[in-house]
Amino acid sequence: MFYHVKELQFNARVSKPDPRFARLLLEQFGGPNGELKAAMQYFVQAFSVKNPYPDQYDMLMDIATEEFSHLEIVGATIQMLLDGVNGELKDVADSDEMMALLGGKSAKEGYIHEAMVNPQFGVLSGGGPRLTDSNGVPWMGSYVNANGDPTVDLRSNIAAESRAKIVYEYLLKFTDDPSVKETLMFLMTREIAHYQMFEAALNKIQPNFPPGIRQGDPRYSNTYFNMSSGADARGPWNDGTSTQLGETWQYVADPLAKVEQTNGLVDSEIAGTHRTMESMKEAEETLGKMRSKEIKSSIPDKDIQWSTYGAEKKNDGDTGTFL
Amino acid sequence: MFYHVKELQFNARVSKPDPRFARLLLEQFGGPNGELKAAMQYFVQAFSVKNPYPDQYDMLMDIATEEFSHLEIVGATIQMLLDGVNGELKDVADSDEMMALLGGKSAKEGYIHEAMVNPQFGVLSGGGPRLTDSNGVPWMGSYVNANGDPTVDLRSNIAAESRAKIVYEYLLKFTDDPSVKETLMFLMTREIAHYQMFEAALNKIQPNFPPGIRQGDPRYSNTYFNMSSGADARGPWNDGTSTQLGETWQYVADPLAKVEQTNGLVDSEIAGTHRTMESMKEAEETLGKMRSKEIKSSIPDKDIQWSTYGAEKKNDGDTGTFL
Amino acid sequence: MFYHVKELQFNARVSKPDPRFARLLLEQFGGPNGELKAAMQYFVQAFSVKNPYPDQYDMLMDIATEEFSHLEIVGATIQMLLDGVNGELKDVADSDEMMALLGGKSAKEGYIHEAMVNPQFGVLSGGGPRLTDSNGVPWMGSYVNANGDPTVDLRSNIAAESRAKIVYEYLLKFTDDPSVKETLMFLMTREIAHYQMFEAALNKIQPNFPPGIRQGDPRYSNTYFNMSSGADARGPWNDGTSTQLGETWQYVADPLAKVEQTNGLVDSEIAGTHRTMESMKEAEETLGKMRSKEIKSSIPDKDIQWSTYGAEKKNDGDTGTFL
Amino acid sequence: MFYHVKELQFNARVSKPDPRFARLLLEQFGGPNGELKAAMQYFVQAFSVKNPYPDQYDMLMDIATEEFSHLEIVGATIQMLLDGVNGELKDVADSDEMMALLGGKSAKEGYIHEAMVNPQFGVLSGGGPRLTDSNGVPWMGSYVNANGDPTVDLRSNIAAESRAKIVYEYLLKFTDDPSVKETLMFLMTREIAHYQMFEAALNKIQPNFPPGIRQGDPRYSNTYFNMSSGADARGPWNDGTSTQLGETWQYVADPLAKVEQTNGLVDSEIAGTHRTMESMKEAEETLGKMRSKEIKSSIPDKDIQWSTYGAEKKNDGDTGTFL
Amino acid sequence: MFYHVKELQFNARVSKPDPRFARLLLEQFGGPNGELKAAMQYFVQAFSVKNPYPDQYDMLMDIATEEFSHLEIVGATIQMLLDGVNGELKDVADSDEMMALLGGKSAKEGYIHEAMVNPQFGVLSGGGPRLTDSNGVPWMGSYVNANGDPTVDLRSNIAAESRAKIVYEYLLKFTDDPSVKETLMFLMTREIAHYQMFEAALNKIQPNFPPGIRQGDPRYSNTYFNMSSGADARGPWNDGTSTQLGETWQYVADPLAKVEQTNGLVDSEIAGTHRTMESMKEAEETLGKMRSKEIKSSIPDKDIQWSTYGAEKKNDGDTGTFL
Amino acid sequence: MFYHVKELQFNARVSKPDPRFARLLLEQFGGPNGELKAAMQYFVQAFSVKNPYPDQYDMLMDIATEEFSHLEIVGATIQMLLDGVNGELKDVADSDEMMALLGGKSAKEGYIHEAMVNPQFGVLSGGGPRLTDSNGVPWMGSYVNANGDPTVDLRSNIAAESRAKIVYEYLLKFTDDPSVKETLMFLMTREIAHYQMFEAALNKIQPNFPPGIRQGDPRYSNTYFNMSSGADARGPWNDGTSTQLGETWQYVADPLAKVEQTNGLVDSEIAGTHRTMESMKEAEETLGKMRSKEIKSSIPDKDIQWSTYGAEKKNDGDTGTFL
Repeated sequence: MFYHVKELQFNARVSKPDPRFARLLLEQFGGPNGELKAAMQYFVQAFSVKNPYPDQYDMLMDIATEEFSHLEIVGATIQMLLDGVNGELKDVADSDEMMALLGGKSAKEGYIHEAMVNPQFGVLSGGGPRLTDSNGVPWMGSYVNANGDPTVDLRSNIAAESRAKIVYEYLLKFTDDPSVKETLMFLMTREIAHYQMFEAALNKIQPNFPPGIRQGDPRYSNTYFNMSSGADARGPWNDGTSTQLGETWQYVADPLAKVEQTNGLVDSEIAGTHRTMESMKEAEETLGKMRSKEIKSSIPDKDIQWSTYGAEKKNDGDTGTFL
Repeated sequence: MFYHVKELQFNARVSKPDPRFARLLLEQFGGPNGELKAAMQYFVQAFSVKNPYPDQYDMLMDIATEEFSHLEIVGATIQMLLDGVNGELKDVADSDEMMALLGGKSAKEGYIHEAMVNPQFGVLSGGGPRLTDSNGVPWMGSYVNANGDPTVDLRSNIAAESRAKIVYEYLLKFTDDPSVKETLMFLMTREIAHYQMFEAALNKIQPNFPPGIRQGDPRYSNTYFNMSSGADARGPWNDGTSTQLGETWQYVADPLAKVEQTNGLVDSEIAGTHRTMESMKEAEETLGKMRSKEIKSSIPDKDIQWSTYGAEKKNDGDTGTFL
Repeated sequence: MFYHVKELQFNARVSKPDPRFARLLLEQFGGPNGELKAAMQYFVQAFSVKNPYPDQYDMLMDIATEEFSHLEIVGATIQMLLDGVNGELKDVADSDEMMALLGGKSAKEGYIHEAMVNPQFGVLSGGGPRLTDSNGVPWMGSYVNANGDPTVDLRSNIAAESRAKIVYEYLLKFTDDPSVKETLMFLMTREIAHYQMFEAALNKIQPNFPPGIRQGDPRYSNTYFNMSSGADARGPWNDGTSTQLGETWQYVADPLAKVEQTNGLVDSEIAGTHRTMESMKEAEETLGKMRSKEIKSSIPDKDIQWSTYGAEKKNDGDTGTFL
Repeated sequence: MFYHVKELQFNARVSKPDPRFARLLLEQFGGPNGELKAAMQYFVQAFSVKNPYPDQYDMLMDIATEEFSHLEIVGATIQMLLDGVNGELKDVADSDEMMALLGGKSAKEGYIHEAMVNPQFGVLSGGGPRLTDSNGVPWMGSYVNANGDPTVDLRSNIAAESRAKIVYEYLLKFTDDPSVKETLMFLMTREIAHYQMFEAALNKIQPNFPPGIRQGDPRYSNTYFNMSSGADARGPWNDGTSTQLGETWQYVADPLAKVEQTNGLVDSEIAGTHRTMESMKEAEETLGKMRSKEIKSSIPDKDIQWSTYGAEKKNDGDTGTFL
Repeated sequence: MFYHVKELQFNARVSKPDPRFARLLLEQFGGPNGELKAAMQYFVQAFSVKNPYPDQYDMLMDIATEEFSHLEIVGATIQMLLDGVNGELKDVADSDEMMALLGGKSAKEGYIHEAMVNPQFGVLSGGGPRLTDSNGVPWMGSYVNANGDPTVDLRSNIAAESRAKIVYEYLLKFTDDPSVKETLMFLMTREIAHYQMFEAALNKIQPNFPPGIRQGDPRYSNTYFNMSSGADARGPWNDGTSTQLGETWQYVADPLAKVEQTNGLVDSEIAGTHRTMESMKEAEETLGKMRSKEIKSSIPDKDIQWSTYGAEKKNDGDTGTFL
Repeated sequence: MFYHVKELQFNARVSKPDPRFARLLLEQFGGPNGELKAAMQYFVQAFSVKNPYPDQYDMLMDIATEEFSHLEIVGATIQMLLDGVNGELKDVADSDEMMALLGGKSAKEGYIHEAMVNPQFGVLSGGGPRLTDSNGVPWMGSYVNANGDPTVDLRSNIAAESRAKIVYEYLLKFTDDPSVKETLMFLMTREIAHYQMFEAALNKIQPNFPPGIRQGDPRYSNTYFNMSSGADARGPWNDGTSTQLGETWQYVADPLAKVEQTNGLVDSEIAGTHRTMESMKEAEETLGKMRSKEIKSSIPDKDIQWSTYGAEKKNDGDTGTFL
């Protein structure tokens, strides 16, 4: 259950209207790396972990709710960036009246020019934020990554926070308004904080690589195919030891020959690793049993109930902390 | 700023898993008339009314926040509808293991068949809700209508609540689970309640028709063009007095002739109304001034701040009511 | 069956080219509240009412066909706004030739600048309208609301007309061309007319609230949850009597406490209404029977035919009216 | 300006309800190759040719209007395919009542199973067509190809008709209903007819290749790059004379070597053609002048008017033919 | 299997940065008629013809691979058009620093203005290409037409090449950079070449009209319905002999009367053709058998394998040609 | 420049047709985590690093090209899964003929049932893969994350590989075909390998946290807001030291009070860190200069050329390795 208090989480202010920056800032309101994406991603992920992993649920809902609060900050800032301009003329009936009010043709021309920055501020939303990116493309549910496996979802979140962070960094180049910069700095910094929260949660799950249960076929897990010829480079990604499995990279300089010689790789031999087909299977079964048990034990077969209330509630005192 | 408490607003329960109904229920999670649409629509509309119309802002945020809480109820129900089925097998490594666990080929075949109901429960979300409609089409920001004018937005909301209501009504035909039906009844009834809230708010704004400021050209406001020939019908929509302006409907039985004779309607005469071009202009100016004043007076030209806090805050005691 | 006559329904003219306004006007060609949306919405809704409610069918098809005719007016206006600019250069082979023709580098630069207003006028459509909104986002079938229940669909239409009206009102601020303004005024006024037609049709259906058949649970139909704390407001939406059911609003100042105390609202008592669970059920059954009968009686079980022709036709004379 | 008459262009009938086929048939209602796409494509293309090429305008509007009429036939057929099933239960309040009406649990289960065929028939549209393809993906404006050049647009139309034709052919495999098959055969055949109309119109424009004005660089217009190695094939597409320009195909067996040797093709020599850089330029200029003249002569610089009416109208008698 | 070599197929160069043209050029990177569309269309079509028609497969993969290589050229050009501008400032931390580096407020203002040309170059992609059209609309899989029938797919390709060609032609008007023009000329010319390849392949298939197997009902294949009244035109599309079937066009001047008189066209008589219902059926069966045989003979019932390798491979020497 | 060889990178085979699994497998062909997404993501990212970071460019193009080769494997597998079913009937003209061929009504019914699994295999693609996810939603360019900063892009890639891996893991539960499982295992394992390559590349960049240049405000970088009350959990994400910056988490149990007391967080004090506003600024400047220099030095101001060829080419011998 959500509540709302009318104060913003951060004291967002705007020195003067700036419709151009309002357009740019839409990127974080309804864009693919914006606050709604973040909020919805963590919110949707939370459903599947609530019972088996209540601590992850708590973290996801804490951050999701903060992101909703950030969405509100971004929307409020866009509204303030537009208000001065649109408010004045919002309910003027006509272009003639506009000219009178603005004191002449050229002022009106300027107003129209500003409007062209994002036509839909002028002719669709009447000067408020819209759920689109900075080009007017509507927000889409497909921005949200939620795959029902914490070792995957947390990595999606780490990447999402990285992208949100860089977009705020880019945005900071396009405004001189000290109030707006302060708000952007706050929001950008929170992405840095959230990144580290998700990383800590991922680290706590062991093992967490490979994501999921299946371990990967040792014949293919350490091969590097040199598919782009010319100016070939070597580095830790194709030379030495792999980061997680600690296998030795096998560099295939001529992939076509390799494919021809191995009947389409089917006849490849295991190399560069101590893992075998058998050890792979074993690891999968052990891990599968462990995870299945965690999940099964937390979910009743029938008569499932999401919340308990009042007298029935186990951790009754908890909400006291918050309120 | 949003908060979250872990209890759902309504005590959602599920008697037994039902992946088919989970698929149908997606319509209210990520569909065009679902809870996210409602929540985001009122949330986005609220930005532009906060200063000029704080009571509308309060109502919009109250209802938006309730809709977010309903979104959570719907998501939780989908999760519970899927849990029993997917939970058990969630972390089984392989189709062989599945067969063993489920006790035979046909049980496994049944499981796969269920999965086909919505493939993405099986192969993408790992058994959780997704932000799509019941066919898998991602939620889109364009579902949200927010046009910056309360007389328009409130009508959009009345229609949105009507659609949400009928979708719950349709859904109620497709489940026998008494717990799920109870939840659906609660959610459906809330749409009925919200409908009446928006209607009351619209009624309070006077005048509220036509929406916006412009009054409409009296030459065209009461004409009915009979564009579809055969089995023509007459009724209060083309016969008698119009609902809001109280003008007399002018029925054009042969639109083509009319268009030819009036130089493409440009030479139409005013009929069936006391309104004139002059009275129209006057009404527009009066109303425009009134609304512009309301808005301008509430928005500072510069150094705009969204919230006040602590000592500075005017209505300090208010939050006490809520907490 | 549709026909077309080459004259526009309204005598649309353009004083001089204006590619910027052409871009804005796209909002009503391929935008979410534009003419195609209106036309398709009423056209799609009409299928389900043709047999049970032929008078509604007639009205929907009359208005749908008028909206198609408006779509044509908007497209023609966009074409005329672009023609002077693009026509001249449409088939110039090259930027060098352009410079020659336009008389110098700066004229050419101006031309390119105009083109940037909407790049796709320049590089995709060759100077004609496209089925997008003013930002270039393609029109989508999801703009169309058609839910198979007249009490819902007519409300969707009232809201759609309200939005279309305000967009024309906004557009009127961005052009000084008296010819274009005349066309916009005609189109805007028609939305006002259509609004009242749909309202009249809705009023004729009794009962029409709640939309659909289900009546709503009396425990939840008049509760107002104060979900947004701070600066709480009271008004006819949470105080006094509800607009349609005439119930007394029950204001829940502290929703969390209420939820906790009522086992997630499940133990709520009926208050503020004379409706009971029994009266609700009865009303649903009566209404359900009435509506089912209307629909069943109009649809044969097999060998269904949409139209009759020639000798067989019942209302033979009717088309004469139109032609 | 459009009209509508209530009779369908083709006497569409349905022997018995079939929700599965209704789902498939959506492909031609709101799918990428369906009737709305065709109608809108020709309608949108028509705007730019109205003045310079009135005969093409007439043809495009004739066919566009017929496609709208086909859209109506497809929608009516979907409605009839669903009616028998949904009509009966449309306004039943509840799943209990459904069971009673249908005579038992298994009949109800069957009904729900059918509904799952396309959930949105059941829970969104209330048993009517939706503007989506057969998977529920909404129709999109980007399906429409209109590029402002008749030699391009007519080719887009030829391809569009080919695709529409094959989809009807595929659909014919999935129904046994003789009435539905008759309707599909009519619609499929019309695509064959339209194909030939567009081809005839294209042939009339001379020259029509290459599409547009620019003639193509003779160094690159007849080269065939063998980019996919293994099982290389030769045929009239890379051996002999090219279809339109009559140039001799230059087969590049080893594109990488060629690219290396020619400084990234920049140093390629003209071969296999009599065309030269000069003849190319000349052809472009001649053609450019011709087409520019056609267009410029038809478009006034200002005070543009789309239609003439009544007394003013030049070809007054014409509409008589139609009516 | 794909390879990559780091040299571009064409030696793309840029004289100086031009973010505006970079925006326009996106149309051919991620737009509906761009290089990705072409590449993916031919690639996807190729799967279904690989076994039955290996020569078509070879052609489709040759051209698909070339289009991928063109996508790379377009992307590289966009990057070069942006590099000079963005590179300099890419990793500047702040708007203050920017001002210092750029030498003053007005230079910075100019930079921001450029950025507004496409905001996402500035705030999302960090100055690289994005998979969108020139308005920022993401590329969509629905751009790809692949219908599993070569007589349809090749026509789709001919149309696609026509559109791609005209877009390059339009783009050439918006740049003066001789290097960029050279690249555009190369790319445009290749569309002309590909067009002729597809046409040659289509001509080789006999019969190829109508596309598919079904021949079309002789009652409807040569009728022209005059659906748009006023200024009616006659031409080879409704007068004389049809292009492919050689039937005589039957012009229906008054479609409504015709529909009424023929019971919705059902009672139409065959006219203007020697084809009969019987000859149609026969032609369909003969052609159906021929095509079915071609396809069936090439596809094993089980144990299907896509490629052979090494010793097993039949056409071993072939790849030698390429390498 | 891309090449293609007709052998697949992996010897994909199919034991017997399975249209249901073909539908599921679409998820990796045209779905949000599928092979096209991966290929395009790395391909698009590569443009911006080519000059400043040629080793990253090489790695990105190696992996992008491998992913294109995987896309081909997935498409080939889908084609083989469908071939047996569709091939046989592909060019049957009619449902009657189908019945004959299939030997009776029930066999035909079974065929139609299979087709319903994904209608578009039957009525749109003619039995080949489509660029959609498993629900038929078209692939979208917005799936691709490319933000022009390697420390962001590599994290996006790590997450993308994690998601692709889990989708293959889920898919493995839904097929028993040993050949298909072998292919899926290969593809899944390659995601594990790529994950580690991207991780190694990220580790090589130092510093790589926070992503980008800006360092984050020390007042907000280590605060944890407890926004979801009830069942609060503590863990390494809100207790102890943060993973990257090594700061001490500051747990805010009551965020509302905190916000009120700190004037909307603006008056927050630095805590739990040695970082200061000054040290933050310094770090940003140092890093900004370093990165700017790397980029600037690699990009000429004008006359930019992407590739060198032949004699000019510096690393001429390189391509020899590959070929």
